[in-house]
Amino acid sequence: MDLRIERPERPGRRGEGAAAPVYRQIAEQIRAQVEVGGLAAGARLPTIRALARRLGVNRDTVALAYESLAAQGVVEARVGRGTFVRSAAPATRRDGADALRLAPAVERLLDLERGLPHYGATDGAIPLHALVPDPSLFPVDGFRRAVNRALSDGGAALLGYGGPQGHAGLREVLAARLREAGHAAGPESIVLCQGASQGIALAMRLFAESGDSVAIEDPTYQNALGAVVGLGLRPVPVPMGAEGPDLAALDRVLARPEVKLFYTIPTFHNPMGVTSSLAHRRALLEVAGRHGVPVVEDAYEMDLRFAGRPVPSLAALDEAGTVVQLTSFSKSLFPGVRCGAVVARGRLVEALLVLRHASDLGGALPLQAALADFVGRGAYDRHLAAVRRELRARRDVLLEALEAWMPEGTRWTTPEGGFQVWAELPEPLDTRDLFADALRAGVLFAPGYQFHADGRSSRGLRLSIALAGRDEIREGIRRLGRVACEHVAAGTAPTRAASVHM
Amino acid sequence: MDLRIERPERPGRRGEGAAAPVYRQIAEQIRAQVEVGGLAAGARLPTIRALARRLGVNRDTVALAYESLAAQGVVEARVGRGTFVRSAAPATRRDGADALRLAPAVERLLDLERGLPHYGATDGAIPLHALVPDPSLFPVDGFRRAVNRALSDGGAALLGYGGPQGHAGLREVLAARLREAGHAAGPESIVLCQGASQGIALAMRLFAESGDSVAIEDPTYQNALGAVVGLGLRPVPVPMGAEGPDLAALDRVLARPEVKLFYTIPTFHNPMGVTSSLAHRRALLEVAGRHGVPVVEDAYEMDLRFAGRPVPSLAALDEAGTVVQLTSFSKSLFPGVRCGAVVARGRLVEALLVLRHASDLGGALPLQAALADFVGRGAYDRHLAAVRRELRARRDVLLEALEAWMPEGTRWTTPEGGFQVWAELPEPLDTRDLFADALRAGVLFAPGYQFHADGRSSRGLRLSIALAGRDEIREGIRRLGRVACEHVAAGTAPTRAASVHM
Repeated sequence: MDLRIERPERPGRRGEGAAAPVYRQIAEQIRAQVEVGGLAAGARLPTIRALARRLGVNRDTVALAYESLAAQGVVEARVGRGTFVRSAAPATRRDGADALRLAPAVERLLDLERGLPHYGATDGAIPLHALVPDPSLFPVDGFRRAVNRALSDGGAALLGYGGPQGHAGLREVLAARLREAGHAAGPESIVLCQGASQGIALAMRLFAESGDSVAIEDPTYQNALGAVVGLGLRPVPVPMGAEGPDLAALDRVLARPEVKLFYTIPTFHNPMGVTSSLAHRRALLEVAGRHGVPVVEDAYEMDLRFAGRPVPSLAALDEAGTVVQLTSFSKSLFPGVRCGAVVARGRLVEALLVLRHASDLGGALPLQAALADFVGRGAYDRHLAAVRRELRARRDVLLEALEAWMPEGTRWTTPEGGFQVWAELPEPLDTRDLFADALRAGVLFAPGYQFHADGRSSRGLRLSIALAGRDEIREGIRRLGRVACEHVAAGTAPTRAASVHM
Repeated sequence: MDLRIERPERPGRRGEGAAAPVYRQIAEQIRAQVEVGGLAAGARLPTIRALARRLGVNRDTVALAYESLAAQGVVEARVGRGTFVRSAAPATRRDGADALRLAPAVERLLDLERGLPHYGATDGAIPLHALVPDPSLFPVDGFRRAVNRALSDGGAALLGYGGPQGHAGLREVLAARLREAGHAAGPESIVLCQGASQGIALAMRLFAESGDSVAIEDPTYQNALGAVVGLGLRPVPVPMGAEGPDLAALDRVLARPEVKLFYTIPTFHNPMGVTSSLAHRRALLEVAGRHGVPVVEDAYEMDLRFAGRPVPSLAALDEAGTVVQLTSFSKSLFPGVRCGAVVARGRLVEALLVLRHASDLGGALPLQAALADFVGRGAYDRHLAAVRRELRARRDVLLEALEAWMPEGTRWTTPEGGFQVWAELPEPLDTRDLFADALRAGVLFAPGYQFHADGRSSRGLRLSIALAGRDEIREGIRRLGRVACEHVAAGTAPTRAASVHM
């Protein structure tokens, strides 16, 4: 079969008028060939590895294309045998499903998703793109023993419905940690959730529903943008300054009656890596309080400080009780425990509980109980100490390498914790333009456009020390620097097309 | 302190004009006493046990009142010491949170929740109210070993982000089971979720957003009503007949353009326990297909058939691809695994994945992998065989007892699987009126009003064989029958008030 792949080096705003992602181009062309009979029912597709090599793309890109075709009913995977074109029957059955009208918010979410970079697995490329903690640091055995103890001690009681608030023991443990950080929230103020991500959706739903607007930082966490879009909300950007959101802009945005909340990441901001000062926090709370607008504080990397002095959280400083705080174990321990928390006050807790109940009844007690055991025994703190040491060392290597290899005029942030550093290249580069060349050079980064609600061109890029070791970071930045220097020298690069016959 | 409790025997429509739930009455009166200084900061409240005894209410009712007060910041629990009135500071801080304007859907959800019966724990009352599987039947050790093996074999890979679709091995296993039941859905068509409950919310969000309407059966699962209300949707009832929803009514409802989907429970209907015939299913699909309206099939108790012959699911019969099916392990294994699945086709899978990603990124791989292991080894099927035997025996006892003890003119359904039997008392009784007397007599049931979207008076009640053993079921129905006979003889009972000085 003959596939023609256009590299998505210059996608337009959120994919409009842009080259489709590579996986989608592959999937659509295979599907077209099935439909015209160029690939017959029962025909076996090339292996993922073979097709990836022939097209010069990442293996996960091909895997994604095959999965997408399988989801459409065009092909099917047979375990141990390969991927095959399906007989006609499912193809006709699929039409009904595809003809259904999806909710407008879902269509917008699909559009947003299509505009995101598709990384696939690293396959040797150095992963400086993802905020996914390093599996080599996971305390697997310690946690396995904690699950075992929890199930041995808790027995059947841990296997029932845990309720929307979650395991009382874990809430006690979390409350004690919050108190140590100067945030006087009791276990009754804590609602456990599936990582901060579910917390974002729940906290937004407290105050806003389809058609409402929410204030967000610009740039901000791309999955928070996903949550906003998926809930049918409109994001209203507040520009980020060097040490947090611009408060004059915030003041103007929160004056608008359709804006129902402000979502902010004051500590180790995503994607920028900056932490706002105590004075900035107090001023932010004053602005929000003056407008009576609740603040959703995403503190998802709170436990990952490796330098500087802690700044009290917005929730700890909040006299009015209008801050809803989100915390998570996904970055500081591992994502697989699927545990975070929403911390709120008064009626908000009651409202969170009914929302959580209506969303999924509640979380998994076995994992919550194991986590309570793990934290309660001090194993989490021991783990944190080791992770912080490692992250501190990786950050120092990253900053040194940026200094050594990036083009003149590049600027970057110096985070005191968390995974991410934000770098800005000299104008007028769009970091999307570097992506394909960087991938070819064997390094992945997160281009800045995806962190803007309008998906606009950005000379920013997010670099992560989460997954790569020190040597990899050094080598990755060397490769990225070379690509960046080439682009700076050449101006913007043209769209290239690669044709592969197979 | 002096508390005056009005029994909520005659709550009006969804709580309007009704006596507030007992826990709320207790909480509000204690709060009032704190506010006027009748209870000083630092004062210790009576123990839950003591107050429950004095008021003659269930201990969990008091626990709920105390938790609610704690959430409001009025009292605080100190581990091992008791519950104390808080100092004034948090009470003033709480005002800001309580003054925030919640989203209208959340206010409606809170109203709905307030109208539901609050059972608390059984404390000796025979539990015929809940669809919560019997912990004494949970295969705790087998599952603990499965988790252990999964974490030993899978290691760190199981502790990363699992992605919105979930563990591939579990999806393979589920697909094989679906195929055996005549439903040709591959693993690529399955999206794992947190029990069918999350599946309900995700499936509805595919097609409907705030302001849209959805067709539901009347009566239907009360938490599905919660999902509808929480999403800002309007429920449009389709009356249930003896063997499924009235198809002429369905035809009229689905003709309305604002109705975006039909949510149905064709197998072991909740609350009615009935299963529709093959002919009814085909006719239902024809009606939905004619209007181009997708069908959300909740098959949450599918694996619990203990009598009669299986009827193919709507999804298995679906030629058009417009049925989205929900399954769950919560009832057939245990809720604590928090695992169910949404099964769909074509673009719907892709849409489910972005919605799930925007909701909570995905579920917990350690539990999904353990479940794959547990099912793959045949342990789930062995468990099912034992559970079905037990449920069959319990159902037979229940039906016999209904025959023996319920008032003349009572009618009930004869389920072939699942937990619930629906009984209807002779008119003009409202089963809400029996609730308090039944509780006093030591038996709990689920009054019918909560399964109607409009919360209207109902002579129906749902009886569950999930939690009670055979002897308990027999005794429970004897007690319920006595109370029902008294009410039938006396007509409706007056509202009673109990005053307790403590």
